[in-house]
Amino acid sequence: MNSTGRIFRVGLFGESHGQGIGVTLDGCPPGIPLTESDFNPDLGRRKPGRVGTTPRVEDDLPEIISGQFNGFTTGAPLTLLFRNKNVRSGDYADLRETPRPGHSDFVAYKRFKGFNDFRGGGHFSGRLTLCLVAAGVVAKKLIDPISVNAELVSAGGEKEIDKAVASAMENGDSVGGIVECRAGGIPVGWGEPFFDSVESAIAHLAFSIPAIKGVEFGSGFAAASMKGSSHNDPIIDDTGATATNNAGGISGGLTNGNELVFRIAVKPTSSISIQQSTYSIKTGKVEKLEVRGRHDACIALRVPVVLEAITAIALADFKLLAQSR
Amino acid sequence: MNSTGRIFRVGLFGESHGQGIGVTLDGCPPGIPLTESDFNPDLGRRKPGRVGTTPRVEDDLPEIISGQFNGFTTGAPLTLLFRNKNVRSGDYADLRETPRPGHSDFVAYKRFKGFNDFRGGGHFSGRLTLCLVAAGVVAKKLIDPISVNAELVSAGGEKEIDKAVASAMENGDSVGGIVECRAGGIPVGWGEPFFDSVESAIAHLAFSIPAIKGVEFGSGFAAASMKGSSHNDPIIDDTGATATNNAGGISGGLTNGNELVFRIAVKPTSSISIQQSTYSIKTGKVEKLEVRGRHDACIALRVPVVLEAITAIALADFKLLAQSR
Amino acid sequence: MNSTGRIFRVGLFGESHGQGIGVTLDGCPPGIPLTESDFNPDLGRRKPGRVGTTPRVEDDLPEIISGQFNGFTTGAPLTLLFRNKNVRSGDYADLRETPRPGHSDFVAYKRFKGFNDFRGGGHFSGRLTLCLVAAGVVAKKLIDPISVNAELVSAGGEKEIDKAVASAMENGDSVGGIVECRAGGIPVGWGEPFFDSVESAIAHLAFSIPAIKGVEFGSGFAAASMKGSSHNDPIIDDTGATATNNAGGISGGLTNGNELVFRIAVKPTSSISIQQSTYSIKTGKVEKLEVRGRHDACIALRVPVVLEAITAIALADFKLLAQSR
Amino acid sequence: MNSTGRIFRVGLFGESHGQGIGVTLDGCPPGIPLTESDFNPDLGRRKPGRVGTTPRVEDDLPEIISGQFNGFTTGAPLTLLFRNKNVRSGDYADLRETPRPGHSDFVAYKRFKGFNDFRGGGHFSGRLTLCLVAAGVVAKKLIDPISVNAELVSAGGEKEIDKAVASAMENGDSVGGIVECRAGGIPVGWGEPFFDSVESAIAHLAFSIPAIKGVEFGSGFAAASMKGSSHNDPIIDDTGATATNNAGGISGGLTNGNELVFRIAVKPTSSISIQQSTYSIKTGKVEKLEVRGRHDACIALRVPVVLEAITAIALADFKLLAQSR
Repeated sequence: MNSTGRIFRVGLFGESHGQGIGVTLDGCPPGIPLTESDFNPDLGRRKPGRVGTTPRVEDDLPEIISGQFNGFTTGAPLTLLFRNKNVRSGDYADLRETPRPGHSDFVAYKRFKGFNDFRGGGHFSGRLTLCLVAAGVVAKKLIDPISVNAELVSAGGEKEIDKAVASAMENGDSVGGIVECRAGGIPVGWGEPFFDSVESAIAHLAFSIPAIKGVEFGSGFAAASMKGSSHNDPIIDDTGATATNNAGGISGGLTNGNELVFRIAVKPTSSISIQQSTYSIKTGKVEKLEVRGRHDACIALRVPVVLEAITAIALADFKLLAQSR
Repeated sequence: MNSTGRIFRVGLFGESHGQGIGVTLDGCPPGIPLTESDFNPDLGRRKPGRVGTTPRVEDDLPEIISGQFNGFTTGAPLTLLFRNKNVRSGDYADLRETPRPGHSDFVAYKRFKGFNDFRGGGHFSGRLTLCLVAAGVVAKKLIDPISVNAELVSAGGEKEIDKAVASAMENGDSVGGIVECRAGGIPVGWGEPFFDSVESAIAHLAFSIPAIKGVEFGSGFAAASMKGSSHNDPIIDDTGATATNNAGGISGGLTNGNELVFRIAVKPTSSISIQQSTYSIKTGKVEKLEVRGRHDACIALRVPVVLEAITAIALADFKLLAQSR
Repeated sequence: MNSTGRIFRVGLFGESHGQGIGVTLDGCPPGIPLTESDFNPDLGRRKPGRVGTTPRVEDDLPEIISGQFNGFTTGAPLTLLFRNKNVRSGDYADLRETPRPGHSDFVAYKRFKGFNDFRGGGHFSGRLTLCLVAAGVVAKKLIDPISVNAELVSAGGEKEIDKAVASAMENGDSVGGIVECRAGGIPVGWGEPFFDSVESAIAHLAFSIPAIKGVEFGSGFAAASMKGSSHNDPIIDDTGATATNNAGGISGGLTNGNELVFRIAVKPTSSISIQQSTYSIKTGKVEKLEVRGRHDACIALRVPVVLEAITAIALADFKLLAQSR
Repeated sequence: MNSTGRIFRVGLFGESHGQGIGVTLDGCPPGIPLTESDFNPDLGRRKPGRVGTTPRVEDDLPEIISGQFNGFTTGAPLTLLFRNKNVRSGDYADLRETPRPGHSDFVAYKRFKGFNDFRGGGHFSGRLTLCLVAAGVVAKKLIDPISVNAELVSAGGEKEIDKAVASAMENGDSVGGIVECRAGGIPVGWGEPFFDSVESAIAHLAFSIPAIKGVEFGSGFAAASMKGSSHNDPIIDDTGATATNNAGGISGGLTNGNELVFRIAVKPTSSISIQQSTYSIKTGKVEKLEVRGRHDACIALRVPVVLEAITAIALADFKLLAQSR
């Protein structure tokens, strides 16, 4: 259940405050140039640091445990390990009995019958997205020269992102945002019929990123208000190019030769400094709660590189499937 | 690639104008009461007939080929077959070389190297949703007493649905819509960590329904404009009940004990009577095109029962997984 | 659980005495020439008729429900349906409470909580191998020009097969046999590392054929008595050709360029005319039992074409996987 | 391709002479008591040391990276890592161009296009069975109180195992063997119909152990020489107990309540001190070869605990599947 993909398979493991977190890429073809420094640029983009992100900073350099030899992927499973170092478990110790609103604390407790590592969200922590980004670095190499670029296009409903974030921080609050991803240079006809459409695969992975509440492709929810005569994209040549791109680059679930365009909605960070109330498992009553620890005022700021990663992962699998035919 | 699910597996087959279409349910537990008439209510709801839907009417009674004995499921694969009867292939014969805008014609031609059954969209036809609805009938029995209800909440941006549809029809045009689905009575903690969250599974299936452009859970895209202090749902008792339901019933990817709420955006039907232009594979030029045949002015009218079906299918698999632990 | 394969996926459905049995092939590439008469030769080889096989004869002509158009596979799921016609359920009616020794009656009753279609073994019937053979016909086309040939090499421990079978029949008894399969022309390097070796994939499928008790590759069980110096196959040229073939064409789980050679042990048919004893669910006591109905004295006679089929199915999946890299 | 199982999933990674090897168990239920010392007994049994096994000795203590907290499994993916320490890569450096007979060297080179880590067999090394044994330790806890016991019953065709091994060692040769595995206390009805029978699952995993050439259940290959009247096991009571156990505890692919009994054939170790000949990729000619390094004269000596492990892994998955119904 913690792995995904048909040929290019990605599996995650690890908890926020345990020994470490990691990812295994299975089905990665041999001969892709890969060294540890290749991970720096994307991992750097995910790092906290910008105003509105958590002050927790880890080295976050991956160790390549397997699947790489003499600077190339071997074709055997590629495992990357990130050790946890800067851990302050004390921040979270009392959260076992006081589940934070908006977090997985309560459901994880129930789902895992009280045995889950609750420290910092454990396996549900946003820290696991580090592994997605690392997997994305390999996937981007695999789908080269396809380009994948995501950016935060609004926060708190505003295009003036820094202003919206600053305003939320001032009040000890947090704010959501919208991230848009575009991928260019994808051949026509990638994707699988019923159940494994390109939208299905990308949405499946996108909803694995914590805090995502919605996904829309091309015209998305606006399509619901449109007429067919304005929504249909007229095909203009034999490459499949269309005069408009309401489809977002996907027809019938398959890539249609146009730019892949989709957006995701990121909810505001659940951890806020403002006092909230929640049910206490210990006292059996609703109690006041202040969430301590280090948090992002706008987690959406760190999502773009993660969204690029899951997009590349989905496309890498479709590429290998297309080659199999 | 035409099957989905981990334990409760659903696989589709068939083309719109071939011998028939069908579905195989694998992993369905034995002992569920099931007869052919059980399919009537939901299949009836999907049927055309309401203003704005296609005049093509099939009997659409499934034949239970296997997996049922003496009125109960046997636990062996359950295969349902719908014969195609009312077929007018002539309507579509020239579409091979004139791919319709907004349809899968062009990409299917490329993807299947010209060997696809292009009549009426072939395997990509909306007719395949008949099989999803049939699978949903069994899934609903499996998750009983959980309730699943979907309805069209707007069309063309209007809550006055009939009016919006009538207006589109008058002009030979089509219109999109938004369908909302709610499921009640789901235990806390269904869902799997990374990659198989409840959102991931439902979105994966929802994007298998033709014409869907977006999916959002709970507050959805509105969350992007919200503050954490108003978005977080305070837990109020030991069932996990929350004072608000911005999460849409899912926390950390797992069901949290509240009502599951999500919406999908349905694009306007691609087939319209208004003249359009498209690239002709035959002439190598952009040509005028009139789409003949029988079509829905608002395909969203027929989507609610399909959305219920895929929701029940996803929940059925999660239920069996939850029992395995 | 009733499907197998990673890209070329095969799923079975149906019961011996229900509406019919069938198979869906998913992931089959488009453009393979295929008509219903293509199934005749291999289905004919599986047919009863030779001395020692059951007198039950069905037409056993498959109907191609989907996935084929204008004489070629379309790339969409290919479903084949065999209607059951010559059914005499009365033969089996009392077996529900008197499980036959050597058969699945007792375990199926327990596994499916009494809801299984017990008539003629239901979903466990050897009749389902008809679907494997049909799937094999398509798989053989897919792996062309690789050759796959299986033959019964002994029955009852004797190379004089007809004699051994005749002797068993005279006494109302049955007899087992050994079937050997050879496949030539397989490229070097098919197969997947740990868990999906060629041996694993073939053995997995071979043990899906009813009555199989053992599988051995190359030197097989004889290897256990050999020395390394005589077992190792010296490589003699850059094609990977070896001076001997104790490996049976597989090294490290991957094809090594030599002929694939393996054997399976088929147990004697469980249904015999000789009186046996078994536990009666009805009386709670061990009772005498005579198995009526039509049966094979040596089911191994009909296994070779089934073994070829599962071999071709396994190789077809490996071929598509090899192309994906 | 390096993972297996439907609910209880096992994935391997690592190479013999790289950073380390490891295993991820996904789908393991929460609440199983587990500490690092629990691995000692089975890992100790796999260790070299007995006459006839390689002198290479590693500490081989696993580090639990994730999925365990406060002495119990958490339900999140459980990753175990074994660092490689005692590495002498020089032993193998020239084998890239001189593929050893009986080894994966040649096929791995072809399969992975020359990018494989060839040192010590890389990912194909028998060292990877360490991970299987570790996974087996967890699986045994999961299926408790089911017992699983395997032993070497013959080597070189002899029951006097030590004598057969000593004789091979004297000559710098190696020898094969037969390992038998028995599991008791398994409920009736575990296993899945077509394609995922208990035999299929166990054989699939058994052929993932390097050097295995055959698998047989119950009467196995001897069944091919038997009559039905002596092979059928009469059921004697309502537990499914049978007077004989020619079926090896499996009927119709499902467990039948009797002891599970099967045997595997292990070929003689491929690495021997005796001079052999092989094709040299470098010179393009057949050359003499002496295999240096540390090797087992009878690898079968170390197989029993590995066979127990894969049996427990298969049974663990079937147990979770049985609970899901």
